[in-house]
Amino acid sequence: MKVIVIGATGVIGKEVADAISGQHEVVRVSRNSGDFQADITDKASLEKLFSAAAPFDAVVCCAGGGAFGPLTGLTDQDFDFSLSSKLMGQVNVVRTAMPFIRDGGSITLTSGVLSTQPMPGSAAISLVNCGLEGFARAAALELRDRGVRVNVVSPPWVSETLQMMGQDPSGGMPASEVARAYARLVEDASNGQVISP
Amino acid sequence: MKVIVIGATGVIGKEVADAISGQHEVVRVSRNSGDFQADITDKASLEKLFSAAAPFDAVVCCAGGGAFGPLTGLTDQDFDFSLSSKLMGQVNVVRTAMPFIRDGGSITLTSGVLSTQPMPGSAAISLVNCGLEGFARAAALELRDRGVRVNVVSPPWVSETLQMMGQDPSGGMPASEVARAYARLVEDASNGQVISP
Repeated sequence: MKVIVIGATGVIGKEVADAISGQHEVVRVSRNSGDFQADITDKASLEKLFSAAAPFDAVVCCAGGGAFGPLTGLTDQDFDFSLSSKLMGQVNVVRTAMPFIRDGGSITLTSGVLSTQPMPGSAAISLVNCGLEGFARAAALELRDRGVRVNVVSPPWVSETLQMMGQDPSGGMPASEVARAYARLVEDASNGQVISP
Repeated sequence: MKVIVIGATGVIGKEVADAISGQHEVVRVSRNSGDFQADITDKASLEKLFSAAAPFDAVVCCAGGGAFGPLTGLTDQDFDFSLSSKLMGQVNVVRTAMPFIRDGGSITLTSGVLSTQPMPGSAAISLVNCGLEGFARAAALELRDRGVRVNVVSPPWVSETLQMMGQDPSGGMPASEVARAYARLVEDASNGQVISP
């Protein structure tokens, strides 16, 4: 299969690309490097990516950010950023990939543990993660007419990310282990699922 | 208690205002009528509302819309409308009410059955409903420091709405019955809950 990995230089995306590259042709996409450059907040860049890379069988998106901070401190800009990046950025991925992806293909998106396990400071990110999961479950019902599957991986805290944040990495899951959930969703028959590795 | 009902001329909001007006002082708010006018997509109008109505004990929001339609037909404008109205409109209600609501008060928002039971055509609305529920569960963790509760009612299809859509109203729940869930959340100790009447 030809698999497009968006966010392929990120902590998780790099491991996903590595994990599936033995079995599949991988197109690595990031904002500033890789086989193609695209920014999920820029729909035109995604259209350019997908039309240039077509035909392809799967898209994996491990890109997008959100603002973490106390609700009293989150600004309009924090919400705008969170919604346009990790939420609508990934919605854009689905909408723009649809005309180009092969029938029977799959799209795998990324939410996160704060959807089901919110904490003080996660209001914007919990909104984004839950919104994305709701979108994916609904979108899956429409794309199944073409056999195209839509799923979400909801990663726990990732060891490498915790380390970068100066926290104990043993509280997280290594990115290489998280990556296996994406690889499985690319290859199995799941549809409309939210998977917690 | 003094309870502000936003969307008080809507199918559900009218019943909520009626249901609680026997026990509580109700301030009816809608875009063009009622005791106060405000538009949840306009943060300044909410700030004006809450500063004028303060002090108050509870806010109930039954306002906000979303775009229903096949994913291939939903436009950027459809998503923008859905996100700015039912999703960020209600997030705005929480953010702007926070400085004015009495300690020990409550905020009750509205999602809908399409969060947990998506259907073809509901991609934008399922996103909005799930995103709102995720936001509310997280926001509740922060506002509890002041004893302020945040909850969501996720109404099923409402009989009166089905009738307006030319469909069989017997497939829905009467708005007066849905309203009881809001009244209960204003009065009980629930926090961070999503209630399906």
